[in-house]
Amino acid sequence: MSFTPTVKSILSHYESDNPGTKANLARILMQGKLGGTGKLIILPVDQGFEHGPARSFAINPPAYDPHYHYQLAIDAGLSAYAAPLGMIEAGADTFAGQIPTILAVNQAVTGSVDDALRLGCSAIGFTIYPGSDDVFDMIEEIKEMSAEAKSVGIATVIWSYPRGGTLSKAGELALDVGAYAAHIAALLGAHIIKVKLPTAHIEQKDAQKAYEGGDWSTQAKRVAHVVQSSFAGRRIVVFSGGAAKGADAVYQDARDIRDGGGNGSIIGRNTFQRPRDEALAMLAKLVRIYKNEE
Amino acid sequence: MSFTPTVKSILSHYESDNPGTKANLARILMQGKLGGTGKLIILPVDQGFEHGPARSFAINPPAYDPHYHYQLAIDAGLSAYAAPLGMIEAGADTFAGQIPTILAVNQAVTGSVDDALRLGCSAIGFTIYPGSDDVFDMIEEIKEMSAEAKSVGIATVIWSYPRGGTLSKAGELALDVGAYAAHIAALLGAHIIKVKLPTAHIEQKDAQKAYEGGDWSTQAKRVAHVVQSSFAGRRIVVFSGGAAKGADAVYQDARDIRDGGGNGSIIGRNTFQRPRDEALAMLAKLVRIYKNEE
Amino acid sequence: MSFTPTVKSILSHYESDNPGTKANLARILMQGKLGGTGKLIILPVDQGFEHGPARSFAINPPAYDPHYHYQLAIDAGLSAYAAPLGMIEAGADTFAGQIPTILAVNQAVTGSVDDALRLGCSAIGFTIYPGSDDVFDMIEEIKEMSAEAKSVGIATVIWSYPRGGTLSKAGELALDVGAYAAHIAALLGAHIIKVKLPTAHIEQKDAQKAYEGGDWSTQAKRVAHVVQSSFAGRRIVVFSGGAAKGADAVYQDARDIRDGGGNGSIIGRNTFQRPRDEALAMLAKLVRIYKNEE
Amino acid sequence: MSFTPTVKSILSHYESDNPGTKANLARILMQGKLGGTGKLIILPVDQGFEHGPARSFAINPPAYDPHYHYQLAIDAGLSAYAAPLGMIEAGADTFAGQIPTILAVNQAVTGSVDDALRLGCSAIGFTIYPGSDDVFDMIEEIKEMSAEAKSVGIATVIWSYPRGGTLSKAGELALDVGAYAAHIAALLGAHIIKVKLPTAHIEQKDAQKAYEGGDWSTQAKRVAHVVQSSFAGRRIVVFSGGAAKGADAVYQDARDIRDGGGNGSIIGRNTFQRPRDEALAMLAKLVRIYKNEE
Amino acid sequence: MSFTPTVKSILSHYESDNPGTKANLARILMQGKLGGTGKLIILPVDQGFEHGPARSFAINPPAYDPHYHYQLAIDAGLSAYAAPLGMIEAGADTFAGQIPTILAVNQAVTGSVDDALRLGCSAIGFTIYPGSDDVFDMIEEIKEMSAEAKSVGIATVIWSYPRGGTLSKAGELALDVGAYAAHIAALLGAHIIKVKLPTAHIEQKDAQKAYEGGDWSTQAKRVAHVVQSSFAGRRIVVFSGGAAKGADAVYQDARDIRDGGGNGSIIGRNTFQRPRDEALAMLAKLVRIYKNEE
Repeated sequence: MSFTPTVKSILSHYESDNPGTKANLARILMQGKLGGTGKLIILPVDQGFEHGPARSFAINPPAYDPHYHYQLAIDAGLSAYAAPLGMIEAGADTFAGQIPTILAVNQAVTGSVDDALRLGCSAIGFTIYPGSDDVFDMIEEIKEMSAEAKSVGIATVIWSYPRGGTLSKAGELALDVGAYAAHIAALLGAHIIKVKLPTAHIEQKDAQKAYEGGDWSTQAKRVAHVVQSSFAGRRIVVFSGGAAKGADAVYQDARDIRDGGGNGSIIGRNTFQRPRDEALAMLAKLVRIYKNEE
Repeated sequence: MSFTPTVKSILSHYESDNPGTKANLARILMQGKLGGTGKLIILPVDQGFEHGPARSFAINPPAYDPHYHYQLAIDAGLSAYAAPLGMIEAGADTFAGQIPTILAVNQAVTGSVDDALRLGCSAIGFTIYPGSDDVFDMIEEIKEMSAEAKSVGIATVIWSYPRGGTLSKAGELALDVGAYAAHIAALLGAHIIKVKLPTAHIEQKDAQKAYEGGDWSTQAKRVAHVVQSSFAGRRIVVFSGGAAKGADAVYQDARDIRDGGGNGSIIGRNTFQRPRDEALAMLAKLVRIYKNEE
Repeated sequence: MSFTPTVKSILSHYESDNPGTKANLARILMQGKLGGTGKLIILPVDQGFEHGPARSFAINPPAYDPHYHYQLAIDAGLSAYAAPLGMIEAGADTFAGQIPTILAVNQAVTGSVDDALRLGCSAIGFTIYPGSDDVFDMIEEIKEMSAEAKSVGIATVIWSYPRGGTLSKAGELALDVGAYAAHIAALLGAHIIKVKLPTAHIEQKDAQKAYEGGDWSTQAKRVAHVVQSSFAGRRIVVFSGGAAKGADAVYQDARDIRDGGGNGSIIGRNTFQRPRDEALAMLAKLVRIYKNEE
Repeated sequence: MSFTPTVKSILSHYESDNPGTKANLARILMQGKLGGTGKLIILPVDQGFEHGPARSFAINPPAYDPHYHYQLAIDAGLSAYAAPLGMIEAGADTFAGQIPTILAVNQAVTGSVDDALRLGCSAIGFTIYPGSDDVFDMIEEIKEMSAEAKSVGIATVIWSYPRGGTLSKAGELALDVGAYAAHIAALLGAHIIKVKLPTAHIEQKDAQKAYEGGDWSTQAKRVAHVVQSSFAGRRIVVFSGGAAKGADAVYQDARDIRDGGGNGSIIGRNTFQRPRDEALAMLAKLVRIYKNEE
Repeated sequence: MSFTPTVKSILSHYESDNPGTKANLARILMQGKLGGTGKLIILPVDQGFEHGPARSFAINPPAYDPHYHYQLAIDAGLSAYAAPLGMIEAGADTFAGQIPTILAVNQAVTGSVDDALRLGCSAIGFTIYPGSDDVFDMIEEIKEMSAEAKSVGIATVIWSYPRGGTLSKAGELALDVGAYAAHIAALLGAHIIKVKLPTAHIEQKDAQKAYEGGDWSTQAKRVAHVVQSSFAGRRIVVFSGGAAKGADAVYQDARDIRDGGGNGSIIGRNTFQRPRDEALAMLAKLVRIYKNEE
């Protein structure tokens, strides 16, 4: 598995990390159909705690089975599969070594670094809600668990979703807020940052001056700003697809992520809430987009 | 003790577990009159913290004695006996090895994995209240204790009882809420999930669409949905009998659990609040129902 | 699994042990065709370190496969299976919960209590060589590991084989030496003691007076003395079959063990070095002997 | 990375292992040109402690550089690279994730499981010298470190090289002794066993009877016996190439390993003591042999 | 690196500290163009959590890259560079050993002493807000982390910024309040204290009498009072530049700090929010001021 210059360059940005952690990042970057391109597609099935099973899977009942998602990620040639403890455990042996896994521990409460090690996960994933009242508690938990993970060669993924406090609904997707969210994840030491695609709205009064005169009219430009806010591209940034939507919108998002210099998509409901054949076709097209073939 | 194909199949779903944990699950699955069928009846005497002694036992005074329950579970040929620390300790020597025990540690505060080992328990049991304000604290405690238990070969049972927060009284038993509760227990890594039998009510607005058009008219169909929500049947799900009620209702519940593909009953007050003879007769009939003989 | 009075009586002798350890002893005493009789037959495959594979298995090549022994012990209805770490690991999942296992850690070097827990073993087994130069080192290791095992509900089996130092070859099997060896194991806190069947030879000058006038002419009487030396029968004592020999000798040994009040046989090479059919027939006959049916 | 049936079958033999350990075994089995075949070639550069640098590298000076060996293993498409702590550290970042590494800790003294984790190693490797005076000390160290490794998903490789004590020089390579050495490694819980190719000599008097009448005339038959002694093929067994020798002898060894059912070669001096071009050509031919193409 | 009498004198004030901590203080005091003078200029890039990326860097986009700040601090010959975890990690390897770093852990939540050690930081930096409701929680966290840091030879920097509670806006910069803030940091065991330059306003009624009759008309005199309040000059005190402002104001501040006996400036936005050339020119002039050359 000789690495491409692109992958070598990405890995070189994680300069304080030990070889164990880099090897796990490399596994994700070299996996599947996008292996070696520096682009990623991650399958997350992590909304179960928040949405429950029926809202998640009723539309595509085979997806109630945890094996369904492992198999989908493998068959589609994705980069990694992210899910909470029980979901990972339920297929960890059958699919051991077949695809990098990310143990989604949510607000650091539903899994541990030891779990990640025994289950062979390449990373742990946290969710933080910048703006919410207990964001500092979340951050403190992440600090400890992330430091432990780094010491044993496990990478850290942070889902950074602004929410709560004085934030307006529109503000959750605002450009300044999304860039801020990505920046916080980077400051916290995340290896991979996951944020939502931002709109052109600017939420914070204090920030408006900084955005004045900028051209934020296209999604690609907004992606570029989020990437810039993630240590000028020194950190891997993937964007979430959000709720299930039309396929064309999903493809356009991917093209914008690509054109803005983002590293890829983390796309869950838009795939597993479609019939498997449709999901595979969509993911194949996304791969081609990220490979600049469409 | 050669295992039936049914038991082998159930054990194969716990693919990330070590042989010690599987052996303890096997002990429960092979115990008593339902041994080998993949069905379970568990006797829980765990309402003492919440209800106190008189509400629990005054109606059948011999049940004040912890030995009464061990003996009842053994004589009825049940699968396991679940109780808090003091109750387990009070009979652990006399009945050592005669029936698998589950140390009910409630919200992770009244017993430890070390207690389970010294007392020869096959599992630890937690209660969580999804919807309540402190559910995340509960979950965090479970995470640590469950991981420790798994490492030393002790299984984890989670009682998942929605309660509190904005949940209506009817909502506690709603189908969507019950399926959600089972799903959360599965996500947390439970080996055995215990939930209440759900009604046809749908509580969450966001979930209503997912349930539209489904036929939830019979209890068996609702049980099937809860089983589906527990990793498509990859986890053992048992249903609680709730407050003491008429024997016919208890039998009908069991038939519905059986017909819906549930793994059995966890039935406490409906047995130990009846005279012992009546309880034994009821349990014998439940065994026959789960064996498809009635 | 209601216990027989015999089993209850045996368990009552282990009066300082916690319920976890008793449950594991009970599992062995209630397992298989001799379950409940207070008699045991244990299959040990533990000579690999000392004899190597060909001397052990060339005569019956299917026995090179670790699964062979698990299956033999289960099919013959034996009480437990004892083997070193690698042998136990190689079948621990397939046979999890089907037969109690004893992790043979030899001179405390090839396995740990944590291994026993994760592999679901009921006991750990040590070998000591009373009379050898380093017996005190062995004892010291046993002391620590046995104490740890008892604290987590794992039983301790001690193989006590006099050897080395000033002991003559005949002395290794001498009555006084064998009784001494069993007594040392009992003093060390063993739950199950394994010694060789003794001859009528008395080795130690200092001991001869004590044996004068006794009638040690029959093997059953010598067995009775070893049992007496094991805390007057308060500890389970099983006798080893030694090298493979004629079937009739094996049966006679079993009758003598039974008649002398021993608890059973630990019989390895005499079974797995025979073709499986012969071994099963022999074990079936041994079961009948211990059940007083032959 | 979907696995071949061969790899799935091999992994299924490690039934007591957690998914983390299986993932690391899978990485080795799926790596390089033999990925998926169930055959392995491992590059060990582990004789430095014993032979010193000049005896090791003077014949091919570029090999003084630790990067040389990483690159050789990658360019030749090998399965894994094994070396002591300092050698691994010296290239761990540059080659992170490019090839599975085995941290050779020798007699458990020159590296730790924590080292393996921070360096991203897939396995730790121990050397034992069965027959030597301090083999039990070695074994005890392995026990502890191997148990720790297994708990965090790191695989264990044991180099088992009979030596010392009363063993004759010819005996070190004797068939009975080699089979014995492999068996001991298996008993100790090794995932991958490394032994030397045995001669037809039988060293131990006690073992001669077991080998009588067998046909040990070809190396392939002797390999088959060693594989049989490694839990009837339930453990991966690789054979060492020994001192540098003629290329034809190396190829014949590989054919015999293949025909006898061995899993492959661990070949160090025969490659890095040749000029790089010759070494690559030799390794390419070995790959073809193991793929049954020559 | 022979120390000047000035540096020796400063270090002598930290008399309870171990040599490891003193060596780290010495590294800061001997670094860069002010090395040996007892004066310091520290570059902090620590407003990211509070202000987000665009407010921080949009005015000078190269500053989005963490390497920019390391390089600026080195090229300007500054004494140390302070930033949160992710910022430090992103350049820790490239710039290892080139400039002392201070890991800004904010309210003790985003980094640990272990992080500081693995990243080679000389100090950890905390922010406290005297007057705010949760100042005691902050102090408690600092207590533990600072003690741990001191035990392993890491220095402690405390940013002490009065804010919240009943404090008026003018009061945040009041002389009595600023002196109080510095004193609290000293009481908490800080090695380096960072406060804002105070105005002549006196906020607290209880304190007014103490300040009556004093001459607080010049900034230098107010600086002198803050230094006096920091254990009569036994602790290093640096003053923050606050929001970006005119260059002349920055220079005047430095002259006042110098003349009042302060140890230097901690100056972030006033440098990295200017073009690099301007920033370097400004910092060169500040160095000359602290060297008494302007």
